[in-house]
Amino acid sequence: MSLLEDLNWRHAVKAYDPSKKVSQEDLNKILEAARLAPTSSGLQPFRLIVVENQELKEKMVKGALNPEVMRDCSHVLVFAAWDSYSDEKIDKVYDHHTDVRDLPRGRFSSYTDKIKEIYGAQTPEQHFEHTARQTYIALGLALAQAAELKVDSTPAEGFSNDVVDEILELRALGLKSVSLLYLGYRDEQNDWLSAMKKVRVPMEEFVIKK
Amino acid sequence: MSLLEDLNWRHAVKAYDPSKKVSQEDLNKILEAARLAPTSSGLQPFRLIVVENQELKEKMVKGALNPEVMRDCSHVLVFAAWDSYSDEKIDKVYDHHTDVRDLPRGRFSSYTDKIKEIYGAQTPEQHFEHTARQTYIALGLALAQAAELKVDSTPAEGFSNDVVDEILELRALGLKSVSLLYLGYRDEQNDWLSAMKKVRVPMEEFVIKK
Repeated sequence: MSLLEDLNWRHAVKAYDPSKKVSQEDLNKILEAARLAPTSSGLQPFRLIVVENQELKEKMVKGALNPEVMRDCSHVLVFAAWDSYSDEKIDKVYDHHTDVRDLPRGRFSSYTDKIKEIYGAQTPEQHFEHTARQTYIALGLALAQAAELKVDSTPAEGFSNDVVDEILELRALGLKSVSLLYLGYRDEQNDWLSAMKKVRVPMEEFVIKK
Repeated sequence: MSLLEDLNWRHAVKAYDPSKKVSQEDLNKILEAARLAPTSSGLQPFRLIVVENQELKEKMVKGALNPEVMRDCSHVLVFAAWDSYSDEKIDKVYDHHTDVRDLPRGRFSSYTDKIKEIYGAQTPEQHFEHTARQTYIALGLALAQAAELKVDSTPAEGFSNDVVDEILELRALGLKSVSLLYLGYRDEQNDWLSAMKKVRVPMEEFVIKK
């Protein structure tokens, strides 16, 4: 199957079969696609929290737009972005880059000095606006990987960030929740969207040629 | 090839061969992957501007971090998000949804009323923060599609939004540039990143299990 076939196959599933679980092997591939996502300056300023525990899911449901989807899915992936950039975080990433590439530490210092200067002039709110954006690249690749494996998924912004951040104790990790990806297998009887045609804005309206 | 193989193959190319052009067929598939990207409430609050014209590219170079990459690539895709949400825009999308699905217009009005209420209470700045995020899902899928076709690409935020918005006359369309995706074929001799190992944060650090 091609990516386009996978993207046409998938939709945001509205009802999951709670008896079906995503295998560890498939889950690992989905996480790997997210990990391979490119990000600004390669900083990967976010983490993925994998929630399988039913009790935790029940607590996270508070404030969610589709509580039964969260309850019945197999796994919830929480995309949580860094609350801010710092020189230390940037150095840690680039020390790892040089170590893996057998280069001397500091090899990219003219570049990292530049990004430190840019972020140093910004507020934590501007940082988070930027780190949050990066998570969506990984969200897209994770759901494409799920589709390739014929694992259903539902990307979701309709939940309480405060509830999720508190229950998963994200603030202590310097993280703030941005979006969720529910994973599992559709309950065909109750997923009303299964039977509906996929709708997208027509290509001639979506693309502007210059 | 699988998505994971494609994601491992790709990297953000730093030098393009200006003599090599992406075919219309491949370009169309890349645009289609972006068009199929899921978005919040299915609103697809962004457009893609395709720039192939060399004169336009030369003008857009002003303020770009890697001017030679913009000059030498085959096509520049500009991801440009709605500057704001409005009831009219939401109705237009959902009228299209119901028309394509042979449903009566207004079939989803209880849902659209809710999102109109949410966005109605927000500022245009909050709207754009949200529409901009959505573009990154499409950016990720477009570069994955390019990789599947062995088309090189470079996602980029390092450019002047003001310059690009002005040259492409985006404000008049209610759009603001967010990111670019350069497409083309690498110049292996000059793309210093080609020879380097891909580096990502280790899985055990990237994923937090709960």
